[in-house]
Amino acid sequence: MQEIHGGVTAAKGFTAIGVAAGIKKDRKDMAMIYSEAECRVAGTFTTNVVKAAPIKWDQDIVYGNKTARAVVVNSGVANACTGAEGFGYCRETAEKAAELFGIEANQVLVASTGVIGQQIPIDKIKAGVEKMKQLLSGSAAAGTLAAEAIMTTDTVKKEIAVEVEIGGKTVTLGGMSKGSGMIHPNMCTMLSFVTTDACISQKLLQKALSASVADSYNMISVDGDTSTNDTCLLLANGQAGNPEITAEDEDYAKFAEALNYVNTCLAKRMAADGEGATKLFEVKVVGAESKEQAVTLAKSVVSSSLTKAAIYGRDANWGRILCAMGYSGAQFDPEKVDLYFESAAGRLKIIEDGVSTGYSEEEATRILSEDAVTAIADIKTGDAGATAWGCDLTYDYVKINADYRS
Amino acid sequence: MQEIHGGVTAAKGFTAIGVAAGIKKDRKDMAMIYSEAECRVAGTFTTNVVKAAPIKWDQDIVYGNKTARAVVVNSGVANACTGAEGFGYCRETAEKAAELFGIEANQVLVASTGVIGQQIPIDKIKAGVEKMKQLLSGSAAAGTLAAEAIMTTDTVKKEIAVEVEIGGKTVTLGGMSKGSGMIHPNMCTMLSFVTTDACISQKLLQKALSASVADSYNMISVDGDTSTNDTCLLLANGQAGNPEITAEDEDYAKFAEALNYVNTCLAKRMAADGEGATKLFEVKVVGAESKEQAVTLAKSVVSSSLTKAAIYGRDANWGRILCAMGYSGAQFDPEKVDLYFESAAGRLKIIEDGVSTGYSEEEATRILSEDAVTAIADIKTGDAGATAWGCDLTYDYVKINADYRS
Repeated sequence: MQEIHGGVTAAKGFTAIGVAAGIKKDRKDMAMIYSEAECRVAGTFTTNVVKAAPIKWDQDIVYGNKTARAVVVNSGVANACTGAEGFGYCRETAEKAAELFGIEANQVLVASTGVIGQQIPIDKIKAGVEKMKQLLSGSAAAGTLAAEAIMTTDTVKKEIAVEVEIGGKTVTLGGMSKGSGMIHPNMCTMLSFVTTDACISQKLLQKALSASVADSYNMISVDGDTSTNDTCLLLANGQAGNPEITAEDEDYAKFAEALNYVNTCLAKRMAADGEGATKLFEVKVVGAESKEQAVTLAKSVVSSSLTKAAIYGRDANWGRILCAMGYSGAQFDPEKVDLYFESAAGRLKIIEDGVSTGYSEEEATRILSEDAVTAIADIKTGDAGATAWGCDLTYDYVKINADYRS
Repeated sequence: MQEIHGGVTAAKGFTAIGVAAGIKKDRKDMAMIYSEAECRVAGTFTTNVVKAAPIKWDQDIVYGNKTARAVVVNSGVANACTGAEGFGYCRETAEKAAELFGIEANQVLVASTGVIGQQIPIDKIKAGVEKMKQLLSGSAAAGTLAAEAIMTTDTVKKEIAVEVEIGGKTVTLGGMSKGSGMIHPNMCTMLSFVTTDACISQKLLQKALSASVADSYNMISVDGDTSTNDTCLLLANGQAGNPEITAEDEDYAKFAEALNYVNTCLAKRMAADGEGATKLFEVKVVGAESKEQAVTLAKSVVSSSLTKAAIYGRDANWGRILCAMGYSGAQFDPEKVDLYFESAAGRLKIIEDGVSTGYSEEEATRILSEDAVTAIADIKTGDAGATAWGCDLTYDYVKINADYRS
């Protein structure tokens, strides 16, 4: 497997574009992905009881006919808490695209991100769909325009592509995402779109996606607020020409590995670009009895406001980490925990068997001054582990989220 | 029942004091409560797997002999993650007090709050105990000194007392607390101490306390970080002379009501004094099918970073509230929710049946500009309800918690 240039247009047969449709002021706010061939589609969606209208539209497709040709995305308005009217606009959007491409409306996935509670400006959306249909391109630049158009409070676009050889053919996966996981308030939502030319059964496509999402997007947190719009869609059009993957064999393993690489990269970039963040904060739990235990512990630490504020302050305040592990709900022996801080500047053992090693605070602060820092907790009871990603908690987080919506 | 002046010394037979023992720089850092008669004692403690040494010491007493005469508290150092050495210092502290009072060491409760991972300076602690023994007083002023001595990042002391007539006698309950519930990092911990001269069986004392804690302290959150040291102790010395409360009769109900009043007042003051907070934020869920459902929904909203930041910004960003209800884990129908904002400045219906009422944003901002604001969510499925308390999320929260420990 190797990383290549590009994003959602990297795989064979996919085109994309991003445009300014006038939903936001002077910024790109609509994106489209289109496949010349029918795609098998897999998806995962927010677990929030309050589900935005596009979630309901897409679930009908992903759980229903399981195939699609196009994705239409808007930023600026989330189309959440908009009732039957909002759902009707999903249908109108899909119907508009379907009419232009000569396909069925249930072949068009839609996604929205932005303010909750407002109706999307359907006329601008329809005009945007028309404009995008004209401009679609398979170039890497077009993929980048799409990645830019779905940004809200994001400060950097997020796209990635990889190639992997499967069944003697080069299979490509490319993705783009926006958001910072569970955060993004006004501008709620994580959205992630991955395209591939792999030929793989829909069942295994969904299986690979669900497994990968659990280890990637579901392991990031910015502030624990699970959006009403979280969506990850994976489209596979089979154009790589590899023998269809129909069993969990070596080919499946290669595909799953490549998919997980793409998703993990996008997830980490979302965490690092969390609202107001200055650092990527990685938490590894090792030596766990079970993966479930490690996941619970790692997510609790990466979500702890106190720990995140300490990371911002470059403060090796390990008591907060042990405290967050303690209230996670997972059982472990605090008196067996070893804890390390690690970054490009080095690695330092902070506690051993639950008590301070008498480490140098200056050395710890030096390690925590890097842009990406890792806390490693070894609970010394087994061989399982898990990694979670988040970011620091800063003044700017408060600023971004306290500002009046305008 | 009526509120009276005073705190932990209000009830008959209780003395207290607060002193500067040199643990913190130029600030009071030790407090003592003493009862001339033996007290039945009830307690509730942190559910964190990582439990500070004083928790373990106190649990032996509360679950063991269930009686006590004195409480010794220090602020500045939490005595958490301190191993066998830390637990030994609890014993030494209790033994020192026991020796001075001529009682058993297992009649002395201890509590600590402050930095995790450091050992308490036992010589200063012992000298502090000696000094406090000399200065103990039943005056209201002495109770206030104790309430001040347990403060860490608190900006105001928290004490309250009430009188209630039970069995023809005046029964008094007085309490003090520190902290902001689940928060307080370096300075971790909520501590709460309530004294009463009521005569009540230990079993009912514990029952009343556990029930009240569930509705008061356990309904506040500042940032969801459950401390390693959270402790609530209730001491009853029986000196009011009321007929012993031994059944869940009318007398018990009166006592429980008074206890709940004291605990709720202290809990709300902790929430309002959350680190960096400018506002008390109250969340009421009404019309629920069960209390459990209402509790889950209310706590999710009051703990949402995004909602808290919006409250700081006086922004009626109701989508965040509905979103937080949605990811709480409780089921409800988003399309039946009515939501109101309320404060001293008025009451405004924001959403009806899950969609915006088209309310005035200016009016909403005016209501949210008060020092105490309430969000009321009516989910219209039953008669149960619950109230949670928290505070806004501000720049100062980040500042307090990012600052290097020094």
